[in-house]
Amino acid sequence: MQKNILIIGGGPAGVTTALTAKSVRPEQSVCVVKDIADGVIPCAIPYMIHTMSDPSQNRMGDQSLTDEGIEVINDQAIAMSPSLAEVTLKSGAKLAYDRLVLATGAKPSLPPIPGIDKAGVYTIQKELNYLAALRNELHAAQRVVVLGGGFIGAELADELSRQGSVETHLVEMMPNLLSNAFDTEFCQHIESILAGQGVQIHTNSKVQSIEGQSQVHGVVLDSGEILPADLVLVGVGGKPNVDLARKGGLRITDGGSIWVDSYMRTQDDKIFAVGDCALKRDFFTRKEVPVWLASTATAEARIAGTNLFSIRVLRQIQGTIAAFSTNIGGVSFASAGLTCQSCEAEHFRIVTGCVTAPDRHPGNLPGVAEMKVKLVFADRAGVLLGGQISGGPSVGELINAVAIGIQKGLTVRELDMMQIATHPLLTPAPTVHPLINCAHQALAKLRKR
Amino acid sequence: MQKNILIIGGGPAGVTTALTAKSVRPEQSVCVVKDIADGVIPCAIPYMIHTMSDPSQNRMGDQSLTDEGIEVINDQAIAMSPSLAEVTLKSGAKLAYDRLVLATGAKPSLPPIPGIDKAGVYTIQKELNYLAALRNELHAAQRVVVLGGGFIGAELADELSRQGSVETHLVEMMPNLLSNAFDTEFCQHIESILAGQGVQIHTNSKVQSIEGQSQVHGVVLDSGEILPADLVLVGVGGKPNVDLARKGGLRITDGGSIWVDSYMRTQDDKIFAVGDCALKRDFFTRKEVPVWLASTATAEARIAGTNLFSIRVLRQIQGTIAAFSTNIGGVSFASAGLTCQSCEAEHFRIVTGCVTAPDRHPGNLPGVAEMKVKLVFADRAGVLLGGQISGGPSVGELINAVAIGIQKGLTVRELDMMQIATHPLLTPAPTVHPLINCAHQALAKLRKR
Repeated sequence: MQKNILIIGGGPAGVTTALTAKSVRPEQSVCVVKDIADGVIPCAIPYMIHTMSDPSQNRMGDQSLTDEGIEVINDQAIAMSPSLAEVTLKSGAKLAYDRLVLATGAKPSLPPIPGIDKAGVYTIQKELNYLAALRNELHAAQRVVVLGGGFIGAELADELSRQGSVETHLVEMMPNLLSNAFDTEFCQHIESILAGQGVQIHTNSKVQSIEGQSQVHGVVLDSGEILPADLVLVGVGGKPNVDLARKGGLRITDGGSIWVDSYMRTQDDKIFAVGDCALKRDFFTRKEVPVWLASTATAEARIAGTNLFSIRVLRQIQGTIAAFSTNIGGVSFASAGLTCQSCEAEHFRIVTGCVTAPDRHPGNLPGVAEMKVKLVFADRAGVLLGGQISGGPSVGELINAVAIGIQKGLTVRELDMMQIATHPLLTPAPTVHPLINCAHQALAKLRKR
Repeated sequence: MQKNILIIGGGPAGVTTALTAKSVRPEQSVCVVKDIADGVIPCAIPYMIHTMSDPSQNRMGDQSLTDEGIEVINDQAIAMSPSLAEVTLKSGAKLAYDRLVLATGAKPSLPPIPGIDKAGVYTIQKELNYLAALRNELHAAQRVVVLGGGFIGAELADELSRQGSVETHLVEMMPNLLSNAFDTEFCQHIESILAGQGVQIHTNSKVQSIEGQSQVHGVVLDSGEILPADLVLVGVGGKPNVDLARKGGLRITDGGSIWVDSYMRTQDDKIFAVGDCALKRDFFTRKEVPVWLASTATAEARIAGTNLFSIRVLRQIQGTIAAFSTNIGGVSFASAGLTCQSCEAEHFRIVTGCVTAPDRHPGNLPGVAEMKVKLVFADRAGVLLGGQISGGPSVGELINAVAIGIQKGLTVRELDMMQIATHPLLTPAPTVHPLINCAHQALAKLRKR
């Protein structure tokens, strides 16, 4: 069967590519092949443990696709031939394409820890029935160890600790949780919230082995400490799923992702790759970076979906900024662009501002949270390099003001004089909004240099 | 007494100018003269009726100033002499200055309606004791008529209707409430919310007279309808308070505000004006516009406060965008830049996108609200001209992403491929975020032209 546009993968990257392509060229046939019949919204997986009363609340159906006349095939792509412009499915069917988009995502990979194959050790699979069964196991468990203190691990631990009845351990190799996205003071805030909810945090810790007969009963750290466990959640590892691309002879990067140009084209200009499986270049250094966020994936999907047959919309904003938000213990955290730590690692000379204020005004209104904004600017040029925010739920959209600022090259001097909207029930006061006052503080530092 | 920097006015514009000036040149003496001893946060005045349990919650004290070593004088400036560089206070004191900043605000002005001087007709004064007394009157009233369906009038009516016991009428000359900031569909949403709370809305209505003996007992509309009232709140009128500037011979614009250049300088380069009393030029047309928002005022204050003695920070973003948010009946509304209506009035050729989505994902999570975003772009250039948003509380910060986009010349093509942050508990899904999808929809329209 010949498809104009064939997309392999039904996650956010695949879905958004399909919807974008169909809206741009409605006359073309668009087909999505997905190997998970009952998928879920990936970012909401942790909330299937406690926040959602029923795990099926997180089902990601096909209706948004079929409503637009996009065909959905539940099958697995097992081979591809760029020269024939053809993909072979597990069922034996062969699908020819005018344009192929690989949105094969990332796959969990078990870190090489002795005993990691024991029963009771679970990776996070994006499949509804698997996760519903895992939820039941988690509700029955007494002691759970979460491996990996990135955002998935931290969100899983947060949800587990809300269950009340389960002893939760969180193990992270680095000195702090979430240190890829946040500087130490924000990481420590997250750690103190989780600790306050009873999560036992083990940073600077490697797992030496997983103990037990066939069933896990403990996790041994490199310190020698043994964490008793009847269930282990693996929130680390994972790698781009490039099996199909590799079979097709597509170029794979040193980082293990599918090489693409700025328009998400592989070296075969009929084949695109988007999302977790595709090469991402850092916005500031253009180095390869492993940023596996649905929001990043969908931005790439819009680039690919618009430009499959010709470059219709120039990509003026190059590179990945890793804009990201989360919620730990009811406090919202968000980050975009570079942190101070990542600037140091990459030798950027910087100036920062860090300001707090109540997120409504006056600060005695009901429901007020403290908002903290930290912005990082390049030293001389004053260009915004990154931002970190904590506070109430409004943080989730305020980081997008920062994200747009980064991508548009906003400078500290422009931000100092930027007009923003404020309202007593919705934002900090106009006199003290931390977004603006960070710029003002950074400028004051620059004047003293 | 000689002051380095003398600021007349203790509202957000005056306070922010003082704080900015002091932070830029800590060695200078900064003095604020304010004629209201017990001031309030102006934007929160409506919430003193119902949301705040005690009106003193909204007191705006002097501590933020005195903490920084800024002198505060409670007195009224009654005359100024630019040639002597001197201001005379009501107490008789004379203050000399190196730089003078007029932040004299706007003053309520009674519209020329017969009977408007009757007892029971109240303007909104920014003074705590006055407002505390007014609150008591409002709590005792049976029937209140609010004149003016701008944001102050709509917020007052919203708060009054939450009291439950009071019959509330809202009278507006234009066909819709809040039509300066929103297009009709958003205005109608606001009207339906207020009507659902029992507010009786009279649009397309002028007030012919106010009836009663010495005490008001009704409002007569031009239709002949009589609205019984034992209290009338005037939420219209108002004009820049330029009395002092006029006495000093400063140039007053046709719109009745103090003429200033891009750096908020009057024609006397030792004298600045900021906030409601100062000329504002529209961001797109540079026409004089009456935008009296604290957020606008504080942006001007930062420009003036930084550049009092020399232009230290170039003003790269010119003109006023009127970024604005409010909350009516628990639904948040926000606007920045031009609406379709204002584009039509100014003959801008445009293309729009308008998209809704749940403001969390999946859409069945607790606390979900529908988010609606409408963006207006210039037809050919594709530059963002304005945005309107309704939804949950996150609207208050999302409009700032729009505001920054407008001020940085964001284009529809850039926004279509912009990377944003998303999270299940905080934002719409990355696949359907209305901010992005508006751009996509507008691009689709452009392709068909």
